[in-house]
Amino acid sequence: MPGRRAVVLLSGGLDSATALAVARAEGFDCYALSFDYGQRHRRELESAGRVAVAQGAKEHLVLHLDLRAIGGSALTADIPVPRGRSDEAIGIGIPVTYVPARNTIFLSHALAWAEVLECADIFIGVNSLDYSGYPDCRPEYVEAFERMANLATKAGVEGRSRLHIHTPLIQLSKAEIVKRGAELGVDFGLTWSCYEPEPDGRACGLCDSCRLRRKGFSEAGVRDPVPAAH
Amino acid sequence: MPGRRAVVLLSGGLDSATALAVARAEGFDCYALSFDYGQRHRRELESAGRVAVAQGAKEHLVLHLDLRAIGGSALTADIPVPRGRSDEAIGIGIPVTYVPARNTIFLSHALAWAEVLECADIFIGVNSLDYSGYPDCRPEYVEAFERMANLATKAGVEGRSRLHIHTPLIQLSKAEIVKRGAELGVDFGLTWSCYEPEPDGRACGLCDSCRLRRKGFSEAGVRDPVPAAH
Repeated sequence: MPGRRAVVLLSGGLDSATALAVARAEGFDCYALSFDYGQRHRRELESAGRVAVAQGAKEHLVLHLDLRAIGGSALTADIPVPRGRSDEAIGIGIPVTYVPARNTIFLSHALAWAEVLECADIFIGVNSLDYSGYPDCRPEYVEAFERMANLATKAGVEGRSRLHIHTPLIQLSKAEIVKRGAELGVDFGLTWSCYEPEPDGRACGLCDSCRLRRKGFSEAGVRDPVPAAH
Repeated sequence: MPGRRAVVLLSGGLDSATALAVARAEGFDCYALSFDYGQRHRRELESAGRVAVAQGAKEHLVLHLDLRAIGGSALTADIPVPRGRSDEAIGIGIPVTYVPARNTIFLSHALAWAEVLECADIFIGVNSLDYSGYPDCRPEYVEAFERMANLATKAGVEGRSRLHIHTPLIQLSKAEIVKRGAELGVDFGLTWSCYEPEPDGRACGLCDSCRLRRKGFSEAGVRDPVPAAH
């Protein structure tokens, strides 16, 4: 008998790789979904592909989005990525790397694919503790999206099944995510977090995403197999 | 002083053209947003462009989406478009022209653009009376989207402004939409509704969208300037 299907949003970073591992451990057949949205760190898509294969995803779909035409973020427009911010600074306010409505756009496509696959489960690796202050990573946002999604689709209207957005990492610290991923056998060497890789291809070690990653590995007492320049 | 800005979803059909006219009549500077999503009736995009110009939109952005990669609809996959259905049949159930999560995907991009434009108003020409039975055209869906959107964005979190999704047509019949559009000076000759144009370029007159359009013009006592083959 085939397992239950789930759509898993996969950026290629350590959070989404761990979310995929959790979905698999819960017995789901996983359909990984990534986006080529003009992100500065497009290299994460190669990582997403490797992670999807390594973790036995049934399919890996990469969709193109025109988010550069909308702009408004350091990741999709000509705005510098902040480097070397302190842990305290990272925790305050919404940084310029926030991409307007990104998770809403990603989850909307996941919802469409879930409807076509006739599955009622979507996984997203957001977390609201050691995160970048993005509004669309908070539990109240995800709950509101789930409520809306159940009014948006055929399955919702026909009462066939209730769509559930799983956020297995939402209450975990970055260190706890690293530990959970390690327990589940995630190959962190395949993942990519850096927003602005160095010319030599290494992670910068200075952007918010690198700093959160380093803090997580350091506090978890796990060695990060991905080298950083700084 | 510049007017207030609004993002207006513009498919090129008579509903969205009328919604744009309503937004202008309410004094908004309008930013029209259309999608090239692999729809069978891609020709509607030319109409959207002409409508945007005719109605003085400040900008018209056409974004590409990969909805053919997701499929699941007669408009985006190799599934025949139903022709010649009765008015009664059109009112029952959800037809195969339903595109999974389409309005959620469209509104998500509108939300992103609204955030970049620093505007708090989005117009969408959905209606829930003479419509095709799509779940994402109902008032309860739009309300849930608006609630989610206010938790998703920077403006929502910072409490700067409350985003409002305007649905000026939601309680109107197709005939009332035609009348409203006519009052506001909409040039219906620029609009396009047909899902599957004839080889000679005319509207088919048989798909659900053509039939709803014909019923609307007929009941409003207004002549439709767009000729149909059947």
